[in-house]
Amino acid sequence: MTHARPAGQHTVRRHNSALVLGAIAESPGISRAGVAARTGLTKATVSSLVDRLVAASLLTDAGPERRDGPGRRGTSLSLSPRGPHGLGVEIAVDYVSTCLVDLTGAVHHHRTRPCDNRSQPVGRVLTRVAKAVDTALGDAAARGVDVGGVGIAVPGLVETSSGLLRLAPNLGWRDVDLPAELRRRSALPGDGVLVGNEANYAALAELWAGGHDGLRDFVHVSGEIGIGAGIVIEGALFDGTRGFGGELGHFAVSSRGPRCSCGARGCLERLAGQEAILDRAAAPDLDVLVERLEAGERTATAAVRGAADWLGAALSSVLNLLDVPAVVLGGTYARLHPWLADPLASHLSGRVMGAPWSPVSVLRSALGTEAAVRGAAASAVRTIIADPDAYIAPR
Amino acid sequence: MTHARPAGQHTVRRHNSALVLGAIAESPGISRAGVAARTGLTKATVSSLVDRLVAASLLTDAGPERRDGPGRRGTSLSLSPRGPHGLGVEIAVDYVSTCLVDLTGAVHHHRTRPCDNRSQPVGRVLTRVAKAVDTALGDAAARGVDVGGVGIAVPGLVETSSGLLRLAPNLGWRDVDLPAELRRRSALPGDGVLVGNEANYAALAELWAGGHDGLRDFVHVSGEIGIGAGIVIEGALFDGTRGFGGELGHFAVSSRGPRCSCGARGCLERLAGQEAILDRAAAPDLDVLVERLEAGERTATAAVRGAADWLGAALSSVLNLLDVPAVVLGGTYARLHPWLADPLASHLSGRVMGAPWSPVSVLRSALGTEAAVRGAAASAVRTIIADPDAYIAPR
Repeated sequence: MTHARPAGQHTVRRHNSALVLGAIAESPGISRAGVAARTGLTKATVSSLVDRLVAASLLTDAGPERRDGPGRRGTSLSLSPRGPHGLGVEIAVDYVSTCLVDLTGAVHHHRTRPCDNRSQPVGRVLTRVAKAVDTALGDAAARGVDVGGVGIAVPGLVETSSGLLRLAPNLGWRDVDLPAELRRRSALPGDGVLVGNEANYAALAELWAGGHDGLRDFVHVSGEIGIGAGIVIEGALFDGTRGFGGELGHFAVSSRGPRCSCGARGCLERLAGQEAILDRAAAPDLDVLVERLEAGERTATAAVRGAADWLGAALSSVLNLLDVPAVVLGGTYARLHPWLADPLASHLSGRVMGAPWSPVSVLRSALGTEAAVRGAAASAVRTIIADPDAYIAPR
Repeated sequence: MTHARPAGQHTVRRHNSALVLGAIAESPGISRAGVAARTGLTKATVSSLVDRLVAASLLTDAGPERRDGPGRRGTSLSLSPRGPHGLGVEIAVDYVSTCLVDLTGAVHHHRTRPCDNRSQPVGRVLTRVAKAVDTALGDAAARGVDVGGVGIAVPGLVETSSGLLRLAPNLGWRDVDLPAELRRRSALPGDGVLVGNEANYAALAELWAGGHDGLRDFVHVSGEIGIGAGIVIEGALFDGTRGFGGELGHFAVSSRGPRCSCGARGCLERLAGQEAILDRAAAPDLDVLVERLEAGERTATAAVRGAADWLGAALSSVLNLLDVPAVVLGGTYARLHPWLADPLASHLSGRVMGAPWSPVSVLRSALGTEAAVRGAAASAVRTIIADPDAYIAPR
């Protein structure tokens, strides 16, 4: 957000509100005095800002702070679970899903509607997505909470500067202004709508879930119909100069191979994506595949091993380029982790130049196919926490 | 550098000296008053620090500042070309080179000694390198200048935390402590010796040379016997968690292909490196190859086009992952740019997902095979400028 006028009282209050809310988000249960010590603001300033944030339902004041030792006990401040929620929307190739996340990060609604979005014209898919958005907004209203921001996850290139979905090869979409299109068809809010790549949102959700011993450098690989990667470096997403980074699915792993939706041949996702694995295993869907894998069925095992080889070729290149210590398998790959991880790890230990000094970990996403929609909702929530005044007093 | 004692006068002076020198490096010809305005220090503090930096030969005071308009003219401060020099040393597979760079970035000595370092035991190669180091130190002494820091560029994995050369596959070296080994064999200084990957130093040299309209996001590809990449993002080197990033030469571009020095098959450098091109062109060396390319000889042209295809496969993957807008061809690829660039650009425009919105530039390095050794020397110089007290008053 850019604004050219000089920093006045409103700007200072805006800045300080964010400081205070950030301190409380980091240390739930902290007292006003604790916030003052943490931020360097006076207690009077903190109290006045806290009162305003409580009135806006961003904070709760939960009574006496738990503290050992003598002295007056302050009250205990936390982000309010009844405050504004983030709405996450994911438009995948084979489903649409939505979820609501509150300021504390808790998920309150998660609905997935399987559907084949490739076979439908864009307008019909958008109508379906709009319906899902309205249902979720209805759920929020029924819970008596406000939707303070929306994140929309899509399987394609989202341009950071314009927010346009430039290209979603597996959907066959180009240059779609999703917020505008969905507003025409639903009660989607006019402000606070983010659009992002599903693999990037999934990686952020994994980071924010804080598993894997607080891992802060990894590549999250989302295996779906397409394959995407989210690159996390020092606890931040790396998505390139225009936001188009992480397109692992179009890694050139073979000079031949079937033609991809992007027009090229030999793309990773045609050889190691969900459909390639199901085809090779002659399994109708993932549930059947997993049953057969659990039964040790040979065709199924070979299909997953084949995918591990292609995936290993691409990921060894990624790790030789980026030197990150871990790969997190997400999306449908999370379900296949028990059969994918070992062949993949052995491939990587043979090809990653730095592996002899610290082996690459192949981890399983805790969130699986829910990661992207959760990351989208959580991004909306984090936007509110980072700048509460934009929510309390939008211009 | 970590030191636990409280910030005292020495620490403050150290910090301020770096501020002052940095301001002058950014604006050569600036006055003392200009430095004071830029840094927020008092004129008296600036004058005393400048006097000290002049006495240490880091600055020159070149008389009246050129300035239009009325008022007293200050004197003009610049980094001294007679101050400490950085010594760059490159240990390549087929040559050893050295250069001296002064504080202003000018190159004063550049010697390349062709030799086959693969066929020799490590001790003999180090003796040869030590001799080159002593010759360069002699050149500096003859010029009457001090060597204030050294950068050593190597074709392998250098671990940031230890400074060890962990692995140089094309040399067959593992776990070499280069500063220690060279000190045993030469007059290499005891302090201020950096070791880094040659492709990373080459990318930094290209960045610091400031060509290509001030490009700050690019992948620099060093084509030599091996192939390395240096990734520059927002004007800074990205080299991964341990410093092992940029290993483009070991990208898996084929599931077959000749066995690589790293042990795997199908690595890019075996298919598109200098030796693969010369082999396919049946040319004895690069000069002959270039002559034949200039004459439009068909085998030579086909050999370069073949390399462009493999390079295009790998670089399209890199750009799909990182979304940077430009590739800079360096090392021997800089000489081959007239024949490589078009097929490579056409490959990239077909495979890079974001290319329709802004095409990828395939640029030619201005420095070619000199980039790595220059980058190593310039890194040593920049280390002095960033912390002049470590040079003036080492502990």
